[in-house]
Amino acid sequence: MKPNASKAPRGVALVGQSGGPTCVINESLVGVVREALRHKQITAVYGALHGIQGILRQELIDFGSEKAKTLDQVAATPSAALGSVRKKPTPEECADIFDVFRAHNVRYFFYIGGNDSAETASIINRLAADHGYELRVCHIPKTIDNDLLVTDHCPGYGSAARFVALAHVGDNLDNRALRGVKLNVIMGRHAGFLTAAAGLGRVHDDDGPHLIYVPEVPFDVERFTGEVDGYLKKLNRCVIAVSEGIAGPDHQPVLTTGEKDSHGNVQLSGTGALGDYLAGLIKSRLNVSRVRADTFGYLQRSFPTVVSPVDAREARAVGAFGVKMMVTSREVLSGSVAMRRTGKQGRYGVEYFITPLETVAKKTRSLDARFIAPSGSDVTPAFVRYALPLIGELPVAGRLRGKRVRQREVEARQAGATAPAAG
Amino acid sequence: MKPNASKAPRGVALVGQSGGPTCVINESLVGVVREALRHKQITAVYGALHGIQGILRQELIDFGSEKAKTLDQVAATPSAALGSVRKKPTPEECADIFDVFRAHNVRYFFYIGGNDSAETASIINRLAADHGYELRVCHIPKTIDNDLLVTDHCPGYGSAARFVALAHVGDNLDNRALRGVKLNVIMGRHAGFLTAAAGLGRVHDDDGPHLIYVPEVPFDVERFTGEVDGYLKKLNRCVIAVSEGIAGPDHQPVLTTGEKDSHGNVQLSGTGALGDYLAGLIKSRLNVSRVRADTFGYLQRSFPTVVSPVDAREARAVGAFGVKMMVTSREVLSGSVAMRRTGKQGRYGVEYFITPLETVAKKTRSLDARFIAPSGSDVTPAFVRYALPLIGELPVAGRLRGKRVRQREVEARQAGATAPAAG
Repeated sequence: MKPNASKAPRGVALVGQSGGPTCVINESLVGVVREALRHKQITAVYGALHGIQGILRQELIDFGSEKAKTLDQVAATPSAALGSVRKKPTPEECADIFDVFRAHNVRYFFYIGGNDSAETASIINRLAADHGYELRVCHIPKTIDNDLLVTDHCPGYGSAARFVALAHVGDNLDNRALRGVKLNVIMGRHAGFLTAAAGLGRVHDDDGPHLIYVPEVPFDVERFTGEVDGYLKKLNRCVIAVSEGIAGPDHQPVLTTGEKDSHGNVQLSGTGALGDYLAGLIKSRLNVSRVRADTFGYLQRSFPTVVSPVDAREARAVGAFGVKMMVTSREVLSGSVAMRRTGKQGRYGVEYFITPLETVAKKTRSLDARFIAPSGSDVTPAFVRYALPLIGELPVAGRLRGKRVRQREVEARQAGATAPAAG
Repeated sequence: MKPNASKAPRGVALVGQSGGPTCVINESLVGVVREALRHKQITAVYGALHGIQGILRQELIDFGSEKAKTLDQVAATPSAALGSVRKKPTPEECADIFDVFRAHNVRYFFYIGGNDSAETASIINRLAADHGYELRVCHIPKTIDNDLLVTDHCPGYGSAARFVALAHVGDNLDNRALRGVKLNVIMGRHAGFLTAAAGLGRVHDDDGPHLIYVPEVPFDVERFTGEVDGYLKKLNRCVIAVSEGIAGPDHQPVLTTGEKDSHGNVQLSGTGALGDYLAGLIKSRLNVSRVRADTFGYLQRSFPTVVSPVDAREARAVGAFGVKMMVTSREVLSGSVAMRRTGKQGRYGVEYFITPLETVAKKTRSLDARFIAPSGSDVTPAFVRYALPLIGELPVAGRLRGKRVRQREVEARQAGATAPAAG
């Protein structure tokens, strides 16, 4: 199809970032840049500001003038250093993109993002072929949602999952100290992977979250309040992790299906409406005075210092691997970088490979059925085995042995002082 | 007043935790326990489960049977390991507390908490004197709000401030990548110290948060939307930090849920209502499509691994110092541990002292006027000098130099591809 398909072209490598930022998307950027600077077929390495918007506006930067130390610092910094964009190019814009590519002799295009970004890469790749323009297009995966097909998991997920797991370790301890119901709303429009991570830090039998609701299981208000009530009766407290994407049996988001539609917001993140609605439900239906709801929001994807070392390493590696394949392979001329597990005897390991863009573009993966507990409101040990190696080591939460002091008789002036109360 | 006032009594030391947990309140607990176990006047070290509630119910544990390793782990674990409580004892309950103290020969009482806890300690101390019961009562300060009088700052604040500062470093980068308005609601009922910490990680001129609203400055909706609009026009984006306790010129909170605890405090946290309300205001009044609000909630006080080393060290030290003073001093028989700065030539340092319980009980400190910028919507360099040493080192956020690639002429099939757009 393409001219000289088996020989890598000589020209500029262009890299862009797209979609929601993550804590390690800059590792992938630096992985691409570092590797690209090593190959002599690549005449220069450019970055597009705010993804394809930067290409359309010719807002490009030259990585040749960045210091190594700056690149190291950028790699370890959350969010997208080039700026990001949520934009699917129209056919006209794709034609414009090629005009810019031609003008700058761009022959390698690396687009770091999720399935929408893979779709953009795929469209550009197809149009390049149609135009007879020799271009190698590589999608570099990133998403905190972990919802890309083919790959075992996505760079960005491990660090976001670490944040969610740690947050619940702390929140469970907080709820143990001051009892009541605590509900946390977690990002993930369609896939429950990030919400499921709430369960990764549990150690003791009574550790929360006690209930985990993912978008893959139809959300039923009656069952929900019943399950919360069960934990209140058993433990006098309940920690709940809920995906922002939970939907009723009719596949409509909960907020538009519930009795009270007063919040009525279609946008899922960046608002506390779902948490407040569910907290209100619990308060009105159950006998509990202390109900609190937090919506983790953007902290999950951009909090500095809460980074999984495994995730950072893999994010760097997918970028470098994509460049290496595009420059050296005689067969694989486009695609998306993916990972498969190779670890043996319980040791974790991955290898990288290229999957066709079309296998990743637009499609989304859901939380595997084997990862959802039969109850529908928890995760399975199989999920913990899958996800725990991705988030880095968790700190050991200390718990007092708590040997009770024998109660002594006191002057029986008032019953309250002697009778040990329940709870 | 007290019998044998100048000689430390022999008996049990009892420690409890009260109020909202923090990331380092267990450091103070272990500071108390470790030091108390060293003194032979102290016959045993007990812990009260859930503060004074545990005393009233005689739910006490014996620290003598805790392993050193457990204590180390507990010290490094967020939240209150003994359990906490929000409860002000009635006069009858105080009498009951003495009955329990007498029955167990409790002669040292350490209560770790904020100004409400100092009040409880003060009441118990006064009643002990009235009853002629020899008791040394020491309040160990903790609060993420940093609103205690006398002390330079409070253990717990540094780590919570670190969380808020880091969150804004990440959130500013996120907002830079995907522009719009981002609003974060931060804990702090009356004092703006924690909200002010949002500004501690700013490095570049355009770094957010661009606006910081504390409860000490009357909140004016017109001025607020005007200031946000100003940044939208200047930077095309705006990051805003808002205290949950902001109040209008009439001193009424902008929004409340109407729930109160036994100290008469109105519930402000655990709901996204204020953030959603302010985001709605911006959306309806300003020309901006992307407006997001996050409410940090309980993450601020219980997130594991985000701990200021300075804060952890001081939290441990205030506990140990309190015990040492109560056991060894011949003059100071009760009080609250406080800190004052001793650092010279820009180096940070503190020393510990005891201040009378009454100077801390119930009263609250507000953000010093010198820490609030004349605009009323930012902090001053003096605040940064005050707070930065308390939160530990921040990571350096990398920023690309971003040398622009010279734009090239492309076939003028469509204007959009050549004309660099603004923004």
